[in-house]
Amino acid sequence: PLSLQSWNRNPRPACYVWRCQSMKYEKHFNFVMSICCSNNICSFQFVCVGGSPWRMKSFIEYMASILAMEDPKAEYPNICAGTDRYAMYKIGPVLSVSHGMGIPSISIMLHELIKLLHHAHCTNVTIFRIGTSGGIGLEPGTVVITKQSVDANFLPKFEQVILGKTVLRNTDLDSNLAEELLECSKELNQFKTVIGNTMCTMDFYEGQARLDGAFCSYTEKDKQEYLHNAQKLVFRIYKMFLVLYFYSCAAAVVCVTFLDRLKGDQLTSSHEVLDGYQQQPQTLVGHYIKKHLSDKKDS
Amino acid sequence: PLSLQSWNRNPRPACYVWRCQSMKYEKHFNFVMSICCSNNICSFQFVCVGGSPWRMKSFIEYMASILAMEDPKAEYPNICAGTDRYAMYKIGPVLSVSHGMGIPSISIMLHELIKLLHHAHCTNVTIFRIGTSGGIGLEPGTVVITKQSVDANFLPKFEQVILGKTVLRNTDLDSNLAEELLECSKELNQFKTVIGNTMCTMDFYEGQARLDGAFCSYTEKDKQEYLHNAQKLVFRIYKMFLVLYFYSCAAAVVCVTFLDRLKGDQLTSSHEVLDGYQQQPQTLVGHYIKKHLSDKKDS
Repeated sequence: PLSLQSWNRNPRPACYVWRCQSMKYEKHFNFVMSICCSNNICSFQFVCVGGSPWRMKSFIEYMASILAMEDPKAEYPNICAGTDRYAMYKIGPVLSVSHGMGIPSISIMLHELIKLLHHAHCTNVTIFRIGTSGGIGLEPGTVVITKQSVDANFLPKFEQVILGKTVLRNTDLDSNLAEELLECSKELNQFKTVIGNTMCTMDFYEGQARLDGAFCSYTEKDKQEYLHNAQKLVFRIYKMFLVLYFYSCAAAVVCVTFLDRLKGDQLTSSHEVLDGYQQQPQTLVGHYIKKHLSDKKDS
Repeated sequence: PLSLQSWNRNPRPACYVWRCQSMKYEKHFNFVMSICCSNNICSFQFVCVGGSPWRMKSFIEYMASILAMEDPKAEYPNICAGTDRYAMYKIGPVLSVSHGMGIPSISIMLHELIKLLHHAHCTNVTIFRIGTSGGIGLEPGTVVITKQSVDANFLPKFEQVILGKTVLRNTDLDSNLAEELLECSKELNQFKTVIGNTMCTMDFYEGQARLDGAFCSYTEKDKQEYLHNAQKLVFRIYKMFLVLYFYSCAAAVVCVTFLDRLKGDQLTSSHEVLDGYQQQPQTLVGHYIKKHLSDKKDS
C-alpha cells in the first residue's frame, strides 16, 4: 500500500523520500492534517515557526498590518483547534506555527507540517524560525541569523538515531537566504544583525552550562571555560531548531539574544526592553516577506 | 554568591546538589516561580505531569471529584498564567503540570518545578507522569507502569552532554512505587495493567521506526525487525519522559498504549475508545493518591 513521493523546493534535487499512505494521515496523533483541505492553504509561500503560541499569533497580526491585509474585525483564530500541542495561524500567503520547546517537539511539528504542505500542493515554500536565545559575547538585543549549527562539542553535525543506528545530518543553512536577510536588516537600519554559528543542545540548564538549574555539578570557572571555548566558534547558544534545515528546503533561523551568557544566566533587562527585542526577528522576517511579495507583483 | 543546597525525598540520601542564588529564580525564562509564594503551594504531596495542558486540567477536575473537594462553581484556573509554555493546576495536595513534548521540554519544566517545590519547602513529594504511548505486542488499552527505560539501542542508560562531556544517567524507576501502583490496578479491576520496560527516543517518526513521517529511509521489513528486537526487552515505545526519574526522587511513569506498533503506525480505534483509554492512567494514579491520603488520615 506504500507509494514513494518526493517533496522538494525547486530547483533543488529531490533528496528526500516520503512514504505516503494517502489520507490516513488525517488520523495523526498531534496535528490536524485535515485543515489542508478545509482551509485551502494551497497558496502558502512563507511559513514562520517559533516556540510560543502567543508569539506566533502576534506574528500573524503583525504580518496582517504590514501587508495591509488587516481587517479591524479579524480575530485570527487558531486553525489547529483540534489539538493543544501546537497552534497555527494564517494570513494571505503566510502560515505561522508554534512548535513548543526542544528538538523532539519541533521535529514532530515539521514532519507533519511538511506532509500538510505536500497534500496542499505547496511548492517553493520558505521556512523561517523566529525566536529568542542566549548570546555569547554579543550585546543583548543583537539579532543573529544562523550560518551553521554546532553540537555541544562544537562540531557541525546533528546525530539522529534511526533503527538504533546513528545517522549524521548536515547542519548548514541556506547561505543566500541568510545574506538576503542581512541585507534586509541594513535596509531597516533599526537594530544590529549578524550572521553567526549557533550551538544546539538537548538541555537548557546543564546542557547550556547554566548554574541556576535544579542540579549543577560544575563551577562558575568550568562554565566560563566552556563558554569561552564556544565563543571561538559560535555567536549564540540555543537548543531547539537544529532539525529545521535538513527537514525543510529553504530555511533560515533568526533569533534575538536576550542576554550575554558570559555575564550571567538570568535576564537583567526590563520586561519592556525584552518585549522590544523579541519583536526584532519578526520585523526582519516581515520586511523580507513584504519585499518578496512586492518584487513578485512588480515582475 | 552561590550556596549549596539539597532537595531530596526522605529517607533517600541527599544525592543531588542544587546551587541556589536566592530569589533571583523568580526571573526565570519559562516558568512563573513566584507562584510558590503567591499561591501557597507548600502542602503539595503529589505532582502529576503530562504532555497536554488539556489533559492536566482534566486530571485536576477528576482529582477534585474523587477527593470530594469539588466546588460546582470552581474553574481551576491555570496558575502559570504568566507563560504559554506550560500550564499548571492545583487542588488540595495535588499539583498538575503540563510539560509539552520531548525530553528537552520536560527537562526545563522539571528543573523549574523542583526549584519551585524547594522554595515552597515541599518534602516527601511523589511525582507521576501520566500519558499515552505506542505499545509493542500489547493489546491497545493496556496500562504500562515503567520499570526501566532503555535507549534506541535497547541499553538501560540516558546520555546527557554537560560542558561537552557525556554523562551517563541511571534509568531505573522506583520499584516499590511501581508495585504499589500495580496493586492499585488489581483493586480497581477495570483495565489490564503491566510493569514493563520503556524505550525512550528523541524522535517520534524516524526515531520510533514509523513509516508515515515526512521522511523515511527504511522499509516495513526493517521496521518489523527493529521492533521485534525491541519486543524482547521492552513492552512499549515512547519518547519523552526519561529524565523524570533522575531529576525527581520518588517517581512513576504510567501510560496507556493506544496501538500495537507491530500492527501499524496509525491509530485505528475510534475517538470514544481512545478517550476511554486515556482516562485509565489518571484513574490509576487518582486511586493511589486517594488511598494514600485515606491511610494518612486513618493513622
